[in-house]
Amino acid sequence: MHRKFDKTTTHERRDAITYAAIRRWDNEDPLRHRREEFDLPGGVIYLDGNSLGPLPKATRSRMDEVLTKEWGQGLIRSWNTHDWIDAPLRVGDKIAKLIGARSGEVVVADSTSVNLFKLIGAALAARPDRCVVLSEPGNFPTDLYMAEGVIGTRNCAAQLRLEPADRIIDSIDSNTALVVLTHVHYKTAAIHDMRAITAKAHEHGALVIWDLSHSAGAMDIDLNGCNVDMAVGCGYKYLNGGPGAPAYLFVAERLHAQIASPLKGWMGHLRPFEFEDRYAPAPGIRRFLCGTPSILGLLSLEVGVDLMLRCRMQDIVQKSRWLSELFVDLVADICPTLELVSPTNVLERGSHVSLAHPDGYCIMQALIERGVIGDFRAPNLLRFGFTPLYLRYQDVWDAAYTLSDVVHSGCWADPRYAVRAAVT
Amino acid sequence: MHRKFDKTTTHERRDAITYAAIRRWDNEDPLRHRREEFDLPGGVIYLDGNSLGPLPKATRSRMDEVLTKEWGQGLIRSWNTHDWIDAPLRVGDKIAKLIGARSGEVVVADSTSVNLFKLIGAALAARPDRCVVLSEPGNFPTDLYMAEGVIGTRNCAAQLRLEPADRIIDSIDSNTALVVLTHVHYKTAAIHDMRAITAKAHEHGALVIWDLSHSAGAMDIDLNGCNVDMAVGCGYKYLNGGPGAPAYLFVAERLHAQIASPLKGWMGHLRPFEFEDRYAPAPGIRRFLCGTPSILGLLSLEVGVDLMLRCRMQDIVQKSRWLSELFVDLVADICPTLELVSPTNVLERGSHVSLAHPDGYCIMQALIERGVIGDFRAPNLLRFGFTPLYLRYQDVWDAAYTLSDVVHSGCWADPRYAVRAAVT
Repeated sequence: MHRKFDKTTTHERRDAITYAAIRRWDNEDPLRHRREEFDLPGGVIYLDGNSLGPLPKATRSRMDEVLTKEWGQGLIRSWNTHDWIDAPLRVGDKIAKLIGARSGEVVVADSTSVNLFKLIGAALAARPDRCVVLSEPGNFPTDLYMAEGVIGTRNCAAQLRLEPADRIIDSIDSNTALVVLTHVHYKTAAIHDMRAITAKAHEHGALVIWDLSHSAGAMDIDLNGCNVDMAVGCGYKYLNGGPGAPAYLFVAERLHAQIASPLKGWMGHLRPFEFEDRYAPAPGIRRFLCGTPSILGLLSLEVGVDLMLRCRMQDIVQKSRWLSELFVDLVADICPTLELVSPTNVLERGSHVSLAHPDGYCIMQALIERGVIGDFRAPNLLRFGFTPLYLRYQDVWDAAYTLSDVVHSGCWADPRYAVRAAVT
Repeated sequence: MHRKFDKTTTHERRDAITYAAIRRWDNEDPLRHRREEFDLPGGVIYLDGNSLGPLPKATRSRMDEVLTKEWGQGLIRSWNTHDWIDAPLRVGDKIAKLIGARSGEVVVADSTSVNLFKLIGAALAARPDRCVVLSEPGNFPTDLYMAEGVIGTRNCAAQLRLEPADRIIDSIDSNTALVVLTHVHYKTAAIHDMRAITAKAHEHGALVIWDLSHSAGAMDIDLNGCNVDMAVGCGYKYLNGGPGAPAYLFVAERLHAQIASPLKGWMGHLRPFEFEDRYAPAPGIRRFLCGTPSILGLLSLEVGVDLMLRCRMQDIVQKSRWLSELFVDLVADICPTLELVSPTNVLERGSHVSLAHPDGYCIMQALIERGVIGDFRAPNLLRFGFTPLYLRYQDVWDAAYTLSDVVHSGCWADPRYAVRAAVT
């Protein structure tokens, strides 16, 4: 028996937690059958779907069809007959439904990093008299690096200014060209107030780019409701698109005619198959395409997005909160040596939870060896993602107890767990 | 019986061409068994492998393994256990062997367009006092557009100057920052003199970027032998990597420490998993990585590259010439209304051939309907690729006769062939 859920939470199941209760929650879970749609390895509790989502069963058959029928038999003709050419917009339209965007506002293309470059570049060109790109220290590195990269190409007075999360909103002023933030922090899972920050930016004539990599597919996102200008996001985390799946970008329709990508690729041209010497951007979101789209990755991503569109977002959001809150409560009870780095109020964090421990790396390796897969984020964080489509409350219970066993047994001190892998 | 091969060609089979001779050539072809390694549709002669290479049989089983075992069972662990993290450099090293580069000089990443942006940006930053990027009108559009894009971000005096192919070498001077050319022209197949143009550029202190999209995998390329600075190329044409396969880029080792990508993505960072706020480029070619690599596309590409590495490049080059020369000779004989736009001397053209006809679009559609797949390039070109791994001399014979039938029968005048598809 464990302590009660914190009363600040929204849900109403404030019973003392027992394993019997957990099993009942699984039986009552409206998403319980979604797990069957994934090909999960036996003996594993996967708490890293926020880093790489698992394989949907339908992806295997779809990819076999894409390889055999579309590529193999259709060959070059499939650009037309299987509509590969419109796949970036078609899948973009589907993702739009998950993030509060309209059809024609989202396109799937390139990587999150490349899309950041496009949009940061477009934004700076649209605010040529302003010199500050505002973000926070400790933002996901590529967001900062790409801002640095855009600024470096411009030979101008623009600078990247980093302010702590709680000072961002007050730092926006008439010098601000652009605010670039990750909606849910990749380490702490802290949520930025998208609505308030966007409104403040607009009040001062600045633009915003939100990176949705750690929120889309796990949280309610209402880009148009918040009047967001631009956004980017990742296809291989909550959207279950596969390793290195293409990313997506959003530009509000009201901005389409005003901004253009610095990456003037032929697929974003008004008439790509006229092969003209001069660039002329396509109307609408298509102008943010660049090179030939990655069809294998795109069509794999589509399967993951389709799967998610068959669920109710409110079920996903609710279960995500309950899973993460259950974990936090269990850990506080049975493994209090781990320090919760994420916000304690479940409403203030995204779908993952980070716990600090000086030997976090070794503990995570020992945990993974025991079948509970989370990840490590330097310098000392154990990170666990709670993805509602395939995780059970029972998994969270088992994971928390395994974590407690590992920490308390000291097994993680074995030197083999200290060997650093290339990817952590 | 057809006219003899032109005596300017290098090969020694100058017999009058008969179908019997053609069959004998196929039987003697050292590459004849490679065709069995591809999954080609029945009833099709595929002369568009220069646009999208066909499906290697091994790709299906490899992709099933990648999906089921590496992604499905390995999950996030496969970045280490299946070495996904080094795949961009591993596959890059393999491509290096096809283009005369050394290990550590080539990396697979992003699209050709994005890679052009990286290298053009890096080159202009390395030649800040020079203002001309030199290319040719009618170069593949994305090469010109990306140059325009880089210049547009720089707020500087740089300009894109286009000179006809035969005037490029004389247009290089001390104002030239960079020469960007496609080695083999995507329409005409005309070959630029890589060695002479590179030498002239260096004489004047300029840098060169060669786009190998229409030559790598079909021709002898010796980047280091020609002292080339930088190059990009495509994975889905002669390398048979699959639709939208990732592209690659080459930077000569001597330049690694001097230049860096304007796209400062986290995967090109010196310590990506330290998640530092400030960008510091990785040593070597890895600094030209940007976002998370597209693993499905990369591992599909690797199968195509491995297949090619099992062949002798001299066999590929020789057969490519004979195939294309046979086609040109047959067409001149039996379908003289089509005008050869490619160089008549086989040594002066790459592995494809373009023929002009005012109704080229309709003729190509009628031809495709009859199972001979080439492509159309605006405004009036029928383009045919001669890829030695899976094409037989017999296919070329049959294709030429089918083309002649289509042209002479006038069947292409049916209005349905005039309906423009999205992709031509």
